Amino acid sequence: MALIVQKYGGTSVGSIERIKAVAERVIESHREGHQMVVVLSAMAGQTDGLIALARELTEDPDPRELDVLMSTGEQVSIALFAMAVKSMGYDARSLLGFQVGIHTDRLYGKARIHEVETRRILEELGKQRIVAVAGFQGLDDHGDITTLGRGGSDTTAVALAAALNADVCEIYTDVDGVYTTDPGVCQKARKMRTISYDEMLEMASLGAKVLEIRSVEFAKKFNVPIHVRSTFTKENGTMVVAETKDMERVAVSGVAYNKNEARVTVKKVPDRPGIACQIFEPVFEAGINVDMIVQNTSEDGITDLTFTVTKADFYKTMKLVSETAKKIGAEKVLGDEDIAKVSIIGVGMRTHAGVAKKMFEVLAGENINIMMISTSEIKISVVIEEKYTELAVRVLHEAFHLDEEPHEDQ
Amino acid sequence: MALIVQKYGGTSVGSIERIKAVAERVIESHREGHQMVVVLSAMAGQTDGLIALARELTEDPDPRELDVLMSTGEQVSIALFAMAVKSMGYDARSLLGFQVGIHTDRLYGKARIHEVETRRILEELGKQRIVAVAGFQGLDDHGDITTLGRGGSDTTAVALAAALNADVCEIYTDVDGVYTTDPGVCQKARKMRTISYDEMLEMASLGAKVLEIRSVEFAKKFNVPIHVRSTFTKENGTMVVAETKDMERVAVSGVAYNKNEARVTVKKVPDRPGIACQIFEPVFEAGINVDMIVQNTSEDGITDLTFTVTKADFYKTMKLVSETAKKIGAEKVLGDEDIAKVSIIGVGMRTHAGVAKKMFEVLAGENINIMMISTSEIKISVVIEEKYTELAVRVLHEAFHLDEEPHEDQ
Repeated sequence: MALIVQKYGGTSVGSIERIKAVAERVIESHREGHQMVVVLSAMAGQTDGLIALARELTEDPDPRELDVLMSTGEQVSIALFAMAVKSMGYDARSLLGFQVGIHTDRLYGKARIHEVETRRILEELGKQRIVAVAGFQGLDDHGDITTLGRGGSDTTAVALAAALNADVCEIYTDVDGVYTTDPGVCQKARKMRTISYDEMLEMASLGAKVLEIRSVEFAKKFNVPIHVRSTFTKENGTMVVAETKDMERVAVSGVAYNKNEARVTVKKVPDRPGIACQIFEPVFEAGINVDMIVQNTSEDGITDLTFTVTKADFYKTMKLVSETAKKIGAEKVLGDEDIAKVSIIGVGMRTHAGVAKKMFEVLAGENINIMMISTSEIKISVVIEEKYTELAVRVLHEAFHLDEEPHEDQ
Repeated sequence: MALIVQKYGGTSVGSIERIKAVAERVIESHREGHQMVVVLSAMAGQTDGLIALARELTEDPDPRELDVLMSTGEQVSIALFAMAVKSMGYDARSLLGFQVGIHTDRLYGKARIHEVETRRILEELGKQRIVAVAGFQGLDDHGDITTLGRGGSDTTAVALAAALNADVCEIYTDVDGVYTTDPGVCQKARKMRTISYDEMLEMASLGAKVLEIRSVEFAKKFNVPIHVRSTFTKENGTMVVAETKDMERVAVSGVAYNKNEARVTVKKVPDRPGIACQIFEPVFEAGINVDMIVQNTSEDGITDLTFTVTKADFYKTMKLVSETAKKIGAEKVLGDEDIAKVSIIGVGMRTHAGVAKKMFEVLAGENINIMMISTSEIKISVVIEEKYTELAVRVLHEAFHLDEEPHEDQ
């Protein structure tokens, strides 16, 4: 008998029929003798409907009240789910954030979980009940409702799994696992059996939308095994777990890409202390996230500074940086939206030499020019022209043999 | 400076535009220096939408989970209202049942309020905030969500007014007050300036849908003055208050009618002890409410028993009673759906003699036959043929001079 936390996303509970299907699936595991805690998102479309209502009222809804409004979505899902389970002859209880005791800070709309109580859930499990918990929501120390931001239900599920010391946290979604790369781009993309937390974090931050980053950080911190799988099949998905020796045997685990960034270059910046700070301060103050930053070695006290932001922030960034460039006496500011970031990820990079060299060679072999490079311990990202994205992904996938299942006994 | 509790029904907050209008109205009172606590219902249509979702899932939704589902309606209203107030430059806080501390019993779907905490509301009022409270919902001693049943938001408002010792509880609705009778039936119907709790209770139980009965009982118990008024005008409505000497000066305050009942007569019942019990037991056990009961004086140990039930329960009742009639040896069971109950109400009846006589005379004058009579201290109800309902209401209204404003100095 295991204690299993399952999370079903908005598409999985997007209609009454689907809620019934989820209920049947959960009951099956319950009948096998497992203790079931189910975290649900709002029914697909409902969150957007609530936001639309608020926007009809005001351009800039009060964050506290927006959280009160938004949290009704998950409340509807868990009530309907518990009704479905009961109508099928099994016992269930829905629990809201305040009933479980999911304590967060006060950052409305993007709150972080501090603590999760287990008393009420364990009490319900002890009565052989299936427990449905509202995802995405918590309570601050003032007793006010908070929400955790997009994808927050993943975090709720992992936090519950950690607090309950669950055997596994199953994240049900509309894809059937984590792939070596986007199957839409590369037909040979392969579903991974396992991936490490760190790799998953890199994949997520690079645009793979399977898991929300914070949930992975949480899982890593508390060593909660996550099973990413599909609501619509019974097949195993991908296990996201702590790094093992096995993983290191493969140099590269996956290829990711992101077309959602744009590049800004400040040419001929006088290279004096504090100059980067002067350039980025107005950008950060405007709430714009900067991703890659590259500064070349200075020559004659003059340097070029290049960085990337999301395409949505591009024009605002260009305006802010152009103003700063004038003030500090830089030559000019160049912008480029037609770029993509392609990354290879793998914990094996730590022990395999020459991975970067191979990546650069492969891209050069296709005449793909590399504009920027950024590396971490388990990732190499390059910025290239956007039109080469798919080609780059496919040749890298092939070159690192990602279509082949890693040998267990290698 | 007064502490005012206001309640707005589903029609009053039925759209974003109307929520804004309510916010403006509340802000106006706030600016006049009053402390404002606003109880809201779910937006019109939302409650029915949620019920429809549940029924799509199962014929017989679990009551606990139905309350979790239903209570989201009011949560949406108060969040949007508080956003509206804030967007207009004033401070507001929405509070749910669990945040206020509205404690109820565990009767899901028709819970009764035990206790209302005031700490959090007073704290918010102390910060010059407008407080919006979700109507209709509470929390049982297990920390589970309960709802108070149809019209429960009225009860929430009155209970809050009682706990906060508010100066007045204003119930905003789509009619502008309590009338001497249904203005749709009698053009001369007059809006009353005041009505006593007891009269209001009789009016409500006789089908006048202005206030929910339990809210009036609550108001009477804690002596909370209720002001029934329209969301769509600034005019004063009707004050529902404790009985005063003035009220006794008028014999009759209002005329009510109810076409929603049917009559069942058991003919020639052997009149022995326990016979009424035998007839009604299966009816009560089926959850059917019996309204008027009349039993004639027995003649030769044989009597007739007549009673009324709602039309919805009529066929079920006929079936149950016919079975009993056979068992106890009654002659037959007659049923009649084409009846109406017409009532006159007034605390003045206590001191005015001859009110009943006048009522019977007036009806006889129009050749309206009286089938059943039932009286209380402040009410006389008669059952007549349904087709005479409107005529009876009009002639009674006229005979008791209800179109004339009562003289203050009478």
